[in-house]
Amino acid sequence: MTTLTSAPITAIETHDIRFPTSLELDGSDAMNPDPDYSAAYVVLRAGEHEGHGFAFTIGRGNDVQTAAIRALEPYVLGRTTDDLGALYREMTHDSQLRWLGPEKGVMHMAISAVVNALWDLRAKQEGKPLWLLLSELSPEEIVSLVDFRYLTDALTPDEALAILRAAEPSRSERAALLRERGYPAYSTSPGWLGYGDDKLRRLCKEACQDGFTQIKLKVGADLDDDVRRMRIAREACGDDVRIAIDANQRWDVDTAISWVRALAEFDPWWVEEPTSPDDVLGHAAIARGIAPLRVATGEHVQNRVVFKQLLQADALSYLQLDAARVGGVNENIAILLLAAKFGVPVCPHAGGVGLCELVQHLAMFDYVAVSGSMEDRVIEYVDHLHEHFVDPVVIDRGAYRAPLAPGFSSTMRPESIREYSYPDGPVWASS
Amino acid sequence: MTTLTSAPITAIETHDIRFPTSLELDGSDAMNPDPDYSAAYVVLRAGEHEGHGFAFTIGRGNDVQTAAIRALEPYVLGRTTDDLGALYREMTHDSQLRWLGPEKGVMHMAISAVVNALWDLRAKQEGKPLWLLLSELSPEEIVSLVDFRYLTDALTPDEALAILRAAEPSRSERAALLRERGYPAYSTSPGWLGYGDDKLRRLCKEACQDGFTQIKLKVGADLDDDVRRMRIAREACGDDVRIAIDANQRWDVDTAISWVRALAEFDPWWVEEPTSPDDVLGHAAIARGIAPLRVATGEHVQNRVVFKQLLQADALSYLQLDAARVGGVNENIAILLLAAKFGVPVCPHAGGVGLCELVQHLAMFDYVAVSGSMEDRVIEYVDHLHEHFVDPVVIDRGAYRAPLAPGFSSTMRPESIREYSYPDGPVWASS
Repeated sequence: MTTLTSAPITAIETHDIRFPTSLELDGSDAMNPDPDYSAAYVVLRAGEHEGHGFAFTIGRGNDVQTAAIRALEPYVLGRTTDDLGALYREMTHDSQLRWLGPEKGVMHMAISAVVNALWDLRAKQEGKPLWLLLSELSPEEIVSLVDFRYLTDALTPDEALAILRAAEPSRSERAALLRERGYPAYSTSPGWLGYGDDKLRRLCKEACQDGFTQIKLKVGADLDDDVRRMRIAREACGDDVRIAIDANQRWDVDTAISWVRALAEFDPWWVEEPTSPDDVLGHAAIARGIAPLRVATGEHVQNRVVFKQLLQADALSYLQLDAARVGGVNENIAILLLAAKFGVPVCPHAGGVGLCELVQHLAMFDYVAVSGSMEDRVIEYVDHLHEHFVDPVVIDRGAYRAPLAPGFSSTMRPESIREYSYPDGPVWASS
Repeated sequence: MTTLTSAPITAIETHDIRFPTSLELDGSDAMNPDPDYSAAYVVLRAGEHEGHGFAFTIGRGNDVQTAAIRALEPYVLGRTTDDLGALYREMTHDSQLRWLGPEKGVMHMAISAVVNALWDLRAKQEGKPLWLLLSELSPEEIVSLVDFRYLTDALTPDEALAILRAAEPSRSERAALLRERGYPAYSTSPGWLGYGDDKLRRLCKEACQDGFTQIKLKVGADLDDDVRRMRIAREACGDDVRIAIDANQRWDVDTAISWVRALAEFDPWWVEEPTSPDDVLGHAAIARGIAPLRVATGEHVQNRVVFKQLLQADALSYLQLDAARVGGVNENIAILLLAAKFGVPVCPHAGGVGLCELVQHLAMFDYVAVSGSMEDRVIEYVDHLHEHFVDPVVIDRGAYRAPLAPGFSSTMRPESIREYSYPDGPVWASS
């Protein structure tokens, strides 16, 4: 990082922002029939710059999430972005707040929102997109951002350094490739559970025509429906496109195994969230029970300690980190390093509100400075709500283009913040 | 349960209550140097009765916890206590609130507070202490209160029924014994980390004189200190008193094993919370590494899914459920049944604000209707803040006396609620 001292944070504002997505059944799956995609949103002001961050929720409870972000104000006011490793650890290990987790649920998602806003601020101060800022830190600086507590039986600071140093000499080649070709995406848009068969078929074909080589279908509500929908998707896409399936935690262990086996003839690429995100041993049992089919999970995994165990137990083949559930950028660096240590590809969860905008930076940093590979790696893409962001993701022939604007791409447009504020914005006040 | 329809809930109030315990270093341990014991408190009004419940926190963030309880108002207003299995599942599986967990952290603790308040109300409506009310339900009624989702690879409803039916014929004998002799307690009061050696020695002797056959020491900040403190405690108590040690999540896996081995000469009865409460595999590795010494954990275990795995992995020898962290009475019944299935004794976590008052009911129900045993089972006891409750626990020669007043013993005195309300009660407004 630069040695310049950055401006102190002098103001913090929060917003409860909700989009009425339940009206269209976008985002409907076996566990979430009618989400209203929402953001508990935070803006940090420091001199001429702002840092924007948010926790993603699906409606009710977004007020609780916003209150949790406000509880972090005393930790951030007057502080700078000069040592984001220390500030992250200070919030995470506050002895009183820690009781509300530790490192899970509402309080941890609030920390995520604030930590990500701090990184957005830092990247704007340095005039770089976040993926590039992170990719230009030294291995020692990157390691200093990580909290190794509870990780050392799987990953030590020295092992992390070795991973980062191995990737260091070839960083610039990969950064150039990234700018040229982007990072591969897959599309979840065709497969929401609330869509009818015709819409599913049409959207599958469109996704393939748009250049996606992988799509995803929601499953888990009804097996006969799933067989029919998988058949439609496979027919529409042909044999060369990967079709992942996603049960959104719907099953117990034995049900997961039998259900997935019943869909095996359609060659699902991965089986996502087959059961509780807390069930490490359950995921491991499912992975054994459905092999050679493969398990993916992560969007609801609460922190690095659970990811550590999923890796130790051979419980997943694809790690789907989320940008705004664990403790923000810092904890996601730990998770990227864990995945690299275990040789498991990271395929980030996205969608929701602004998650695509965030995770692209993490995946690109992983490619340039951590794993050094794009093999079997894809970022989820869902094509809604991007219009509310100042620097929305750009998808080109099935790939995320590398963002070039300074920051974390997390800044929502002021008019969107106004319009969708809950309960007083015009969208809600009139309903 | 009775078939009478109970009065609907017509009002809900919440209170942010904080006790300035940090002034005395009561409750100080290796991770929590200066807690202000607090309660996010809820009162449900229904006809002539009230139901009281709370989430326990240690200070900062109690406002967030209170906001989370308020978010549950729409689920409870107008409802009755007639089907608390359904109402519990409705709150836990609300598709939008679930995103904030699922079933962990602030939102789940809020559900716990509300569920426990509903049970307090129900028990007052029926005119029975909660342990007795639960112990008089049929095995089928008890099973209907449990959410078996994510449990069936370890415990099916039929297995739960078999456990409960086996205990049913001898319930009344055990209830009589309980009324006569109470339930064994152990004392954590001597061993807080902030106490000096003389105070430690004096309190150890007092605990033994008071009839406790087990005490507990906080450890984990400094090994030399721990060796000295364990020697003092062992000398003060003699060889016949069990001395448990509690690291409050301080260690990584390898540190835990070496540290505990260094204390082995003092024969610790159990090693509590050696590492992250999320680390099932870590606890299992520690259990193997310190055998024949034994691991205890649970006060920060977020839900039944993690307890299930700790049992499946042979990661604990004593299960320390908490009354107000998991989803209240209903989820704790699931946890008691899991423990019974695996043959692991339940030794509840208590202390804090009102946790002794709550867990005694769960342990006594376990004895009468689930495990049917007190062998190697003790309830934690800490001797502060009981004066704020209308029906405080009574300890007699190292045992909890069975409470006889109707309810869950969760009702705080109105004057305490007024005085310790944060930030406007007289205790805080004047500070």
